Amino acid sequence: MTDITASLRGIVGARHVRTGDDIPARSRADAAEIPPCPPRAVVLPADTGEVAEVLRLCHALGQPVVVQGGMTGLAGGAQPRPGEIALSLERLDGVEDVDVVGRTMLVRAGTPLSTVQAAAAEAGLFYGVDLGARGSCTIGGNVATNAGGIQVLRYGMTRRNVLGLEAVLADGTVVTGLNTLPKNNTGYDWTQLMIGSEGTLGVVTRVSLALQLQPAPPQAALCACASVDHAYAVLDAIDRRFPGRLMAFEAMWREYMDVTLRMATQRRPFAETPEITVLVEVALGEGDAAQAAFSDALGELAEAGSIGDALIAQSLRDRQDFWAYREANYEFHRFMPKATHFDISVAPGRMAAAIDMLRSRLEAARPGTILVAFGHLADCNLHLAVYPPDEHQEAEIAGIVYGIVGDLRGSISAEHGIGVLKRRYLGLSRSPAELDLMRLLKRALDPADILNRERVLPP
Amino acid sequence: MTDITASLRGIVGARHVRTGDDIPARSRADAAEIPPCPPRAVVLPADTGEVAEVLRLCHALGQPVVVQGGMTGLAGGAQPRPGEIALSLERLDGVEDVDVVGRTMLVRAGTPLSTVQAAAAEAGLFYGVDLGARGSCTIGGNVATNAGGIQVLRYGMTRRNVLGLEAVLADGTVVTGLNTLPKNNTGYDWTQLMIGSEGTLGVVTRVSLALQLQPAPPQAALCACASVDHAYAVLDAIDRRFPGRLMAFEAMWREYMDVTLRMATQRRPFAETPEITVLVEVALGEGDAAQAAFSDALGELAEAGSIGDALIAQSLRDRQDFWAYREANYEFHRFMPKATHFDISVAPGRMAAAIDMLRSRLEAARPGTILVAFGHLADCNLHLAVYPPDEHQEAEIAGIVYGIVGDLRGSISAEHGIGVLKRRYLGLSRSPAELDLMRLLKRALDPADILNRERVLPP
Repeated sequence: MTDITASLRGIVGARHVRTGDDIPARSRADAAEIPPCPPRAVVLPADTGEVAEVLRLCHALGQPVVVQGGMTGLAGGAQPRPGEIALSLERLDGVEDVDVVGRTMLVRAGTPLSTVQAAAAEAGLFYGVDLGARGSCTIGGNVATNAGGIQVLRYGMTRRNVLGLEAVLADGTVVTGLNTLPKNNTGYDWTQLMIGSEGTLGVVTRVSLALQLQPAPPQAALCACASVDHAYAVLDAIDRRFPGRLMAFEAMWREYMDVTLRMATQRRPFAETPEITVLVEVALGEGDAAQAAFSDALGELAEAGSIGDALIAQSLRDRQDFWAYREANYEFHRFMPKATHFDISVAPGRMAAAIDMLRSRLEAARPGTILVAFGHLADCNLHLAVYPPDEHQEAEIAGIVYGIVGDLRGSISAEHGIGVLKRRYLGLSRSPAELDLMRLLKRALDPADILNRERVLPP
Repeated sequence: MTDITASLRGIVGARHVRTGDDIPARSRADAAEIPPCPPRAVVLPADTGEVAEVLRLCHALGQPVVVQGGMTGLAGGAQPRPGEIALSLERLDGVEDVDVVGRTMLVRAGTPLSTVQAAAAEAGLFYGVDLGARGSCTIGGNVATNAGGIQVLRYGMTRRNVLGLEAVLADGTVVTGLNTLPKNNTGYDWTQLMIGSEGTLGVVTRVSLALQLQPAPPQAALCACASVDHAYAVLDAIDRRFPGRLMAFEAMWREYMDVTLRMATQRRPFAETPEITVLVEVALGEGDAAQAAFSDALGELAEAGSIGDALIAQSLRDRQDFWAYREANYEFHRFMPKATHFDISVAPGRMAAAIDMLRSRLEAARPGTILVAFGHLADCNLHLAVYPPDEHQEAEIAGIVYGIVGDLRGSISAEHGIGVLKRRYLGLSRSPAELDLMRLLKRALDPADILNRERVLPP
């Protein structure tokens, strides 16, 4: 034990290896609400070369390593397991280059998403990925988990926004493929395999990102919809009427709004809480003409019966208030007991059935259970928080929820990833041959199994 | 030899194994203009199960296999090498399912692209990939090569349009991952590794595609631009003015138009051939208001000096005439000697320099050389046909072109892939560590090296 920490200090400098009480709380737990676990040591390399040296050492010793970014993950993937070295990318931060003409950015893995967004804006451009954890999550973590968020319907997940990567393999090999070209069919695109592999196949150290033109400022509205199918009718109509302009389409089911409205800061948007409250944003620009076009579209949807009522934002303040409903879930833990959380996806044609089955089976199993559902409806991605009336029954609840997801051929993880929390359910969304192929790729790239061991792949 | 063909007949039926003179011309050569080579036999499986049995047999015997789709590839990847069995997917065709609500399609690998496009249109939807070979190329080949084409600027390459795959590995293992969900972060996305691997890592048998809303009918124009930078100014202005509506932005350099205008069917669009003739299409819809908006935009660009002259299509016939210029290159071989072809990409800021360097170095090496350049300017992707004045000097020409591409950190293959023709140049666009990683992946997935042997990876 003394040996390896001494060697690590030799690589990154004594100040950048933390042990014992010097290990910060953030290195002991991510956002998955698993009891904290201190790593054997936290090592903070300054650059790709130091990451490579650290991994070469750990590989030689068979020392397991957990890779840490912004620690905002919800699947427990970045949380240490006993005996692991935590490799934190937080010193490897900063934007290295912005190419305004080529609309690309080269950025180090430990850079927070909000810094990337700000650097793009400063160059008069726009980065297509946005999510609630933007101030803390890092671009390396976004790549490792193929992060989604609130603009996937417009710009895709992180995968679509990555042009190239530099990564360090488990044995310390540095692989640099920092492509900046929009088209580059030269051999296998190994970077695609790294994206979404949750740090189990390599450690992302630098990222080449595609940037976009800045979208026009959005028109925003809250819409009251009587059912999932009504909400999808609204989505379809807006998408057809304003092609390429839809920026967000977030749904909050009745129970979600009920919990939100218990919190003192939130006013009631509609006299009666509808089955689904939709927050829609369309990049139509500001001014009377844009608002009139948006208002006309919503008016027609109201006449057609797809919308019961709608509030159009008249100011930035209104828009912020709308988003405060959608982001209220970050505060639910202060008002509610601990919930069991899910991040699922089902086909749009099965979404209404999914909600019905979830409500009825959870109620049947535990009368009084509250199913809080919200999420990215355009992407068929629901976040669920399940509050049972008595003590926690996580395994039972997970069994019910994942059983329904499996029956409806949905995904047990739309965007949060697998980490440690969902490993045993992976077979519900992937075939046995797919799992075997994943294991084969893991063995090929990390034969000593040191990178994020016992994560993602089923036991 | 008798043994393996007998075994193959046992798997797919005697009629579906062709040998000797029964081997059709299309199985002997693809579109890369390499002298034809008959395979040992052509085997035509009817379904995934038969593909698996064929590969299991070949894997056991160490028998190399070349995978064949529509035979429209330009890099020689699907053309047999001596002693290979050709595995043709042409019987594995047909659309299996279209989900109108979920906007997805399940299709067999041997289905022509045009059939996919038509099936999407029949469902009131749209498939985002289009290319000149649409009537012959197959969706499996599109996936294997990550095909690009004329709408990449709007819908991305094939990669972005694929949601899931079924593939057969070299040893006959069937891996089914026919995801239809827009978001599905459940373990490694192995399908991404297959896309663009040119049949060297597995044989794609079925594909799950994302479909789009049908775009509005396009407004089309031919624009005369005095330089690359003028053309990029037009691109930027149109993209900002009509966000999400740009459908095509094809550039034809002066020499391209000169060759085109030698052909009797083509009329001269501009009195004087400009440095670049741009074909631009914007999905603004039909009618006077749409044409006025388009005309206003082009008028402003003319006033600003970005456009010297412009012709706006007044009819479908006009639009077809505009595309006839862009597709005239398919007929060049009838009027010109054999050329050496390239499919390169350089950053937009280096595009003007690339053309200057290409012209001057080719002229210096072989006075009288004609550099025909055209392509997808919005994607930074140029197709080049180089006509030397004397006999062919392919190696010398390739050395000059790829030398410039390497110096400018461009790509030696933007969309056509590597196949056999570009293997030895792959190191110009990929780092040594990347090539090693590609080899490692190839060994892991095809340890007997039977699939498309001696393709893609450098010797």
